Parts: sequence; structure tokens; C-alpha cells
Amino acid sequence: MALSEFELINRYFRRPGLAADPEVHPCVVLGPGDDCALLELPAGQQLALSLDVLVAGVHFPEDADPHLLAGRALAVNLSDLAAMGATPLGFTLGLTLPRIDETWLQGFSDGLLDAAARYCCPLLGGDTTRGPLQIAIQVQGRLAAGTALRRDGAKAGDDVYVSGQLGRAGLALSVLQNKLPAASAMQRDELLVAYYRPEPRLPLGVALRGLATSAQDVSDGVLADLGHIARASGVAMQLHAEQVPVAATLSALCAPAQALQLALTAGDDYELVFTASPAQRTAIADAAATTGTAVARIGRVTAGTGIEVVAADGSVILFPSAGYLHFS
Amino acid sequence: MALSEFELINRYFRRPGLAADPEVHPCVVLGPGDDCALLELPAGQQLALSLDVLVAGVHFPEDADPHLLAGRALAVNLSDLAAMGATPLGFTLGLTLPRIDETWLQGFSDGLLDAAARYCCPLLGGDTTRGPLQIAIQVQGRLAAGTALRRDGAKAGDDVYVSGQLGRAGLALSVLQNKLPAASAMQRDELLVAYYRPEPRLPLGVALRGLATSAQDVSDGVLADLGHIARASGVAMQLHAEQVPVAATLSALCAPAQALQLALTAGDDYELVFTASPAQRTAIADAAATTGTAVARIGRVTAGTGIEVVAADGSVILFPSAGYLHFS
Repeated sequence: MALSEFELINRYFRRPGLAADPEVHPCVVLGPGDDCALLELPAGQQLALSLDVLVAGVHFPEDADPHLLAGRALAVNLSDLAAMGATPLGFTLGLTLPRIDETWLQGFSDGLLDAAARYCCPLLGGDTTRGPLQIAIQVQGRLAAGTALRRDGAKAGDDVYVSGQLGRAGLALSVLQNKLPAASAMQRDELLVAYYRPEPRLPLGVALRGLATSAQDVSDGVLADLGHIARASGVAMQLHAEQVPVAATLSALCAPAQALQLALTAGDDYELVFTASPAQRTAIADAAATTGTAVARIGRVTAGTGIEVVAADGSVILFPSAGYLHFS
Repeated sequence: MALSEFELINRYFRRPGLAADPEVHPCVVLGPGDDCALLELPAGQQLALSLDVLVAGVHFPEDADPHLLAGRALAVNLSDLAAMGATPLGFTLGLTLPRIDETWLQGFSDGLLDAAARYCCPLLGGDTTRGPLQIAIQVQGRLAAGTALRRDGAKAGDDVYVSGQLGRAGLALSVLQNKLPAASAMQRDELLVAYYRPEPRLPLGVALRGLATSAQDVSDGVLADLGHIARASGVAMQLHAEQVPVAATLSALCAPAQALQLALTAGDDYELVFTASPAQRTAIADAAATTGTAVARIGRVTAGTGIEVVAADGSVILFPSAGYLHFS
């Protein structure tokens, strides 16, 4: 069935609750359908924006469930807003499709609709075209001027924190490749949920404004992402292996050394890593409690360069790889 | 040679004049390198944003010159800002590459640098990843609240205008496919320049704020793009064939009927079509003169639906296709 781009957009992407409506979204002046979308920020607010591209066969399996895929694509981008402490305003979508598959489009737009509604982040516009399957999403958010959680503010003496439980999304890739026969159905489900339904830590990010000295989301792996903060801030970090919140399912399925390695070097967890002065420990605990987010203090910012992981006996633990290198 | 994503970005996309620098660009609070870029708008200004995806083999030839391709990709997106009357603030880039080709990257980033400098639209951030060649660009612009040139404001009785000369970009596709043996080298060059170096009508767009009742850029073809305005505004239009500014090169290379058809139905010209009250004719002429942009009055907005083209003798001219349908 031949469907023009306009029919496709009208049928799948102009649905109430998915497409931005100026009547419902106070910062949206003009939603999808014109040459540009228009946004207006409240006085004293700045705009935060982040663009990510997901490629079939590289970032997700070609045959991934379109509903899960759409939700994950938006959540992963919202994680960048969370890492700055920003509140979502809306997203734009560049969708490249090899063909019109109406079942796939229904699943994909349903998944987007669910995620857009859950995070109050409507579709502002975009582009739909023919080509190898790719999903480009840009999220727009807002925050009070001067309150953004940047990478370059960590100071020697700060504590290092991470939210949530680590490593499940990394292990899920083994499940998706059918390389984990020992896992129970419940364990497999938990891993796949961690991979396909990462929870962008938006409330925690907002709560950390004014408390954290730096923050970043965990997309490349904890060591790699803390490395970005350390480089931008001109500091080093020492992490304590026994304080790393390794997900229980990892500990059940892997040897301790492998579980720790996955927790620290596998990407895709979309938790927040951040630093804060020791004077803020109570405030950080309050922020965690208020937002219902587990937060673990896993180390200390020091002078120097690099990220060091030490065991309980004080010995340094070395890892073969520190994060996903897209072109290595 | 193995180059990580970070090395690639640092080497090719963090160059002075290409990447946004808060010291140089007053609305940029934070440029590339963090989870998000941050923008601040002057009081009373709104943000305009538009995302476009260009796919190799669909929107441009696989072996297109990377310097020309990069400049065209940015110019095409800036055309959407021009069509709203917005001034560029910066762009984000989602670049998907099948492999690291340093010669290609040098040409591409040089082309981007040239265009970014020419239009004062620096790179704010983005994503670089592995996959089939695609270029996703989102442009961010600003305009005074309430002054955007939208599609839904055309009124019966308004004049219909188009800027520039039409049809060369469409004919250039024949040149690229070596289907135009009769053209001289100079004619071929002119067509290729029209295709690869479209001039986003940014000054004209700004000058039309408060004058035009609607506007849109010509990407799908004049008839298709005026059709978007007509539908959004709930009006019809009648165009006069002899007033259409068919490019002289088209008239030299094609029969009159074919030249007119290319001018009205081929896309990629990135001129502006717009409507304005007859009371604004002098003001429109002044806007054209001030911005050095040719502007032709080609018809009239009427009641009803559809776009009709009439010959000098009053007969209606029919065209087989009205614009590029991405999925037909």
C-alpha cells in the first residue's frame, strides 16, 4: 500500500497525547506541521538540547519490538536532560524507514505515545524518510539559568555517587544474543526490561541542581562516563569496588569479577553518576529519598588524572575495556 | 586507522568557527561536549527548531562531494528557519558513517565550517555513530514572539509570491545522472551550484515578518508547497504561468512546457513562497530590494481548495505530479 509521507505522519504521529498541542503544553507555541516548531521559555529559564542517533544493527537488533524500541529511544535521550537537571519540553524525531510497514509503525508510534505521555515530552516535529532504519531524536528541556549540572565542576575531595543498580542492560545484550542459557525466565525478563525500559532519572536530576558539582548519565559505562567528568573537571577519582551497586541478578548469574566488570564498563544503564561535596551528604540522601531513587556513594574525587578502582584490601583492580568506543 | 568517536569529534568537529563558543555566540551558554548544549534567548524571543534527515542514495548520491554535501545539508535546514522568519542560533548534527574515511571527514567538516561561518550558525553538539551514511541536522533559531511566518495565515484576496528563479535544482538531478548531454559546461555548473549551494533566504524571511500572511520554503516543489499553505489556511490559489520565474537556463535547455513543469513541481530550490495583502505590494518590493532578493508575484489567493495554474489565454494547465512524495 502506498502511503505518502503526509498520510504516514497524520495517521501515526499526529495523535492526541503524542504530538505537542499549544493548548496543553504551555511552552509550545507551535507544534508539528509547519516549517519549524516554536517554543517559548518562562523568564529566567534556559534551553537544554541533545541529539542522539540509534542505528539498526548497531544500537539495536533489526527485529527489535518497535513498541519497546520507541520507548527506549525517547528514554535514552531524556536521560541526557536528566544528567543536566533539565525538565522535558518536547522532542523532535527523524525516522528513516526501509519500507512502510503499518504494523511496525503502529507499534512504534504506540511506544512513543506511551513514553511521551509518561515523561510529559510531546513530539514537536521532525522528518520521516526512506532509507536504512535509523531513529534520530532530539530532546528539548528547560532549567533555571545557571543551575545546569555540567561535567566540569567536580573538585578534589568531592564524593562520587551513582544512582540505581548497574550492569543489567549490559548483560541483557547476552540475553538478546541467546548467550545466557542459565538464566530463568524471570531473570531474562528483568534484564530485558533494564535494557528496553531504562528509567531516565529526571526527578533526581532536578533534585541535584545546586547540590551536585557535576553529573552525567551512564551510557558508555560508569568508568568511561566518570572519565568524561574527570577530564572535563581536571581531576581523578578513586572508586571502592565493594560500594558499587552491582545488580543482584548479575551477582546471581556471573562470577563476582565479571559482575563488577559489567557493572562498571557495560553501557546502557542510563543511571546518573555525579559528584558532590561531603557537606551535602544529608541533602543528597534527602534528594534520593524524595525522588524514590537509590543512590550509592562509590568513591572520592582526588587530584590527578584517571579513574582507579580499589578492592576492599586496597589493591587496584584493572579492567580490560573502559566503555564502548563507537569507531574502534 | 582506528579512531574513537571522541578523537573523531575532537579532530574534525571542535574547530574554531565551527563549534559554538559562548565567548563568541551570545545566546550559547554551553556548546558541544556535555550531555546537553544550553541556549539562552533574549527577552521576548521564541525558539524555532527544525530537524531534517538526508539519506545517501535517497537525498544525495553516495559519492557526493563531502564539502558540497555538508554545506547543502546545513543550508537546506536553514531554509526552514528562513521560512519562519527566524535568525539562526546554532545546529546539532547526527552523523552516521559506514567507516572512518579521514579525507571524507576533512571535506565534510570543512564544508560545514564554511556554511556555519557564512550563516553564523555554529555546531552546538550532536552524535556521531557507525551505520549507513545519513546526515540528521536540527537548526535552532530565534524570532520575536508572535512574528513567525506560519502556513495558516493566507487569506482570500492575498497575492502569492515566490523568491529567486525556479527549476534549476530539479534539472540538476538530470545532470547528476548524466542525462543532459546538450548542456554546456557553464550551464551544467550553474545547475549543480543551484542544487549543491541553495541559498537559504534568511534576510528575506526576517524582512517579511509583519508583511507576509504565510510563508514556506520550496522543498517539495512550488505547487506542493503552496498546497501546504492552502490546506493549512483553508484557501485556494490561482497562479499565472507567465509570471512564474522560470530560470533562464531551463528555458534554454528544455521545451517551455517542460521548463514550466520543472519550475513548479521539482523540489530542492529552497526559495520562499509566501502570501501578502495587496496593500503590502510596495513594502514587499522594498523588502526584496533591501535584502537583494528577487521576488515575483505569481498569483492570487482565492476561496476554495487546490492550486490552479492558468496560461495567458486563461486555460488551466495540468501537471502530472505535484511534488516529491517520499513514500509513494
